[in-house]
Amino acid sequence: MTDRKSIVLASRPQGQPSTDNFRLEIDSVPSPKDGQFLVRVIWLSLDPYMRGRMDDAKSYAKPVEVGAVMDGGCVGEVTESHHPDFPKGSIVTGQFGWTSHAVSNGEGVRIVDPDVAPISTALGVLGMPGITAWVGLNDIMEAKAGETVVISAATGAVGGLAGQLAKAKGCRVIGVAGGPEKCDFAVTELGYDACLDHKAHDAKGLSEALKDVAPDGVDGYFENVGGKTLEAVLSRMNVGGRIAVCGMIAWYSGQGVDEAQPLPAVWRNILTRRLTAKGFIIFDHFDRFPAFIAEVAPMVSDGRLAFKESVAKGLEAAPEAFLNMLKGGNFGKQLVRVGDDP
Amino acid sequence: MTDRKSIVLASRPQGQPSTDNFRLEIDSVPSPKDGQFLVRVIWLSLDPYMRGRMDDAKSYAKPVEVGAVMDGGCVGEVTESHHPDFPKGSIVTGQFGWTSHAVSNGEGVRIVDPDVAPISTALGVLGMPGITAWVGLNDIMEAKAGETVVISAATGAVGGLAGQLAKAKGCRVIGVAGGPEKCDFAVTELGYDACLDHKAHDAKGLSEALKDVAPDGVDGYFENVGGKTLEAVLSRMNVGGRIAVCGMIAWYSGQGVDEAQPLPAVWRNILTRRLTAKGFIIFDHFDRFPAFIAEVAPMVSDGRLAFKESVAKGLEAAPEAFLNMLKGGNFGKQLVRVGDDP
Repeated sequence: MTDRKSIVLASRPQGQPSTDNFRLEIDSVPSPKDGQFLVRVIWLSLDPYMRGRMDDAKSYAKPVEVGAVMDGGCVGEVTESHHPDFPKGSIVTGQFGWTSHAVSNGEGVRIVDPDVAPISTALGVLGMPGITAWVGLNDIMEAKAGETVVISAATGAVGGLAGQLAKAKGCRVIGVAGGPEKCDFAVTELGYDACLDHKAHDAKGLSEALKDVAPDGVDGYFENVGGKTLEAVLSRMNVGGRIAVCGMIAWYSGQGVDEAQPLPAVWRNILTRRLTAKGFIIFDHFDRFPAFIAEVAPMVSDGRLAFKESVAKGLEAAPEAFLNMLKGGNFGKQLVRVGDDP
Repeated sequence: MTDRKSIVLASRPQGQPSTDNFRLEIDSVPSPKDGQFLVRVIWLSLDPYMRGRMDDAKSYAKPVEVGAVMDGGCVGEVTESHHPDFPKGSIVTGQFGWTSHAVSNGEGVRIVDPDVAPISTALGVLGMPGITAWVGLNDIMEAKAGETVVISAATGAVGGLAGQLAKAKGCRVIGVAGGPEKCDFAVTELGYDACLDHKAHDAKGLSEALKDVAPDGVDGYFENVGGKTLEAVLSRMNVGGRIAVCGMIAWYSGQGVDEAQPLPAVWRNILTRRLTAKGFIIFDHFDRFPAFIAEVAPMVSDGRLAFKESVAKGLEAAPEAFLNMLKGGNFGKQLVRVGDDP
């Protein structure tokens, strides 16, 4: 009988999290009862939202309890089934957590067709990050052809797709990313018109650089980061501009908060430029999944959309990979290979 | 021949403005040429947006030049006319400025019907503040029956109408105003369900008080002030709440900026509660004027809407009255009586 490995939340972080906040636990693989099935996890997705779950703060989802398995989306293989809709051998995706094996009753679980695209894309371009990019751009920002849009975390799981979808729509698309390698990738592989390296500038410098590449101002901003990027983009927003507030990773662990632009300056911008800042959480928009898949799956299948994955090897590597991602050290969608392909 | 009196911008304020920033100038009443008419000003409106015009900062309207007459909306009588659409004896409203007499070619000028309501209402409940309240509530906040909405500057020219319109719509309406007298007026005369005195609380206390009177949370916030009121209301917003950002008078002269809530906390609220914060400037929405008048004028005529005016006597009193209004010292729509009724 195989062991089950899981990563649990060992303690809540004070500010910046560390590997001490996680603990590997080993028990035996559970057995599915009637109406249940067993999933052997192949891929685990690491996403910025998980940082929020580590805190005991009121947010849009319940915090992970100390001692509980970390929450996370996975792709896996059904290895034993007592559920008619999820037969043995199916590839499935669901919130199985940071673990090697999970028992499920099928709630929130979806079958993945391995013929459409590599199964890992169910966690990226054809999964939660993908629909986040698509909803943010279309439903929240309402980007239109001919407009200039800025995408922060431009090569990330969400940003990388948002940028390509905006380009396909006929927008002028400016990325902001960390480091020359990511910026180069954004332009050459993802088709951004330009990409600014936030590590090379302070807020003022970033604003100046943005003026050069967005001479007509910015109509839409896909906000993933907060921090100086937000400050710089706000200074270039056109009257009537829209900000889709999807994340603020720069501030997730409390760093950079003291240097943040004061609220009154931002509020004044919202007023005088008649901006709309609209927060969204993708869990509210899962009814858009069929429309998203109908549009984006063919673009992935026929190679029109590029996607990049950053793979950590083995469940034990998840905490390090997660911490690295929070600092922007990943390049593309961050995955953990937990088990072999079927 | 009569003299013309005008108040000009003598100098730009550093922070809080003072009477030294204004100067009375006297010249002779100008003569209208062909296609023009002369207006004898009866009422001048004082509005918070004028504070912004005193600064040399990029905003939605050009600053008033130093030495130029202060910008402002007026109601007056046409005393001499070479324009067929504005015959002698007409009552008109337009941006004639802080002055006793003005020559106009009719651009941006509208005839006022004195039979509908007192002519001063063309500067208040049936004028710019009125349409601001109506557009903010209906088009920007999209308030719906059964929702809880909060109106700051609850007894002001804009807030006083917004509160009554929200009540007429079937909302639960909470006001925030400065001092027990205004709060009492809001409840007894304007029909607010409750009104909180921001002078009696810090941000935390205001948040607690709001919890008591808005036990189901806040769905819409009509933002006129910024400062601790914004902070308190943000802490009570429901998921999917909308903020109509109309003004931020608490911060117009730079005061209170240092104590403002940090941006990251606000941005986090926008994200996790999926709020929409939407700035608007009424000049963008003047196409809604006919619809506004059609709905609101009958409510004023038949006394369904209460409105309160605060009148300063004589053009020379305008600077003091304006400075007083910026500190919240007015009670209701602030007007200056510049000339006698016809």
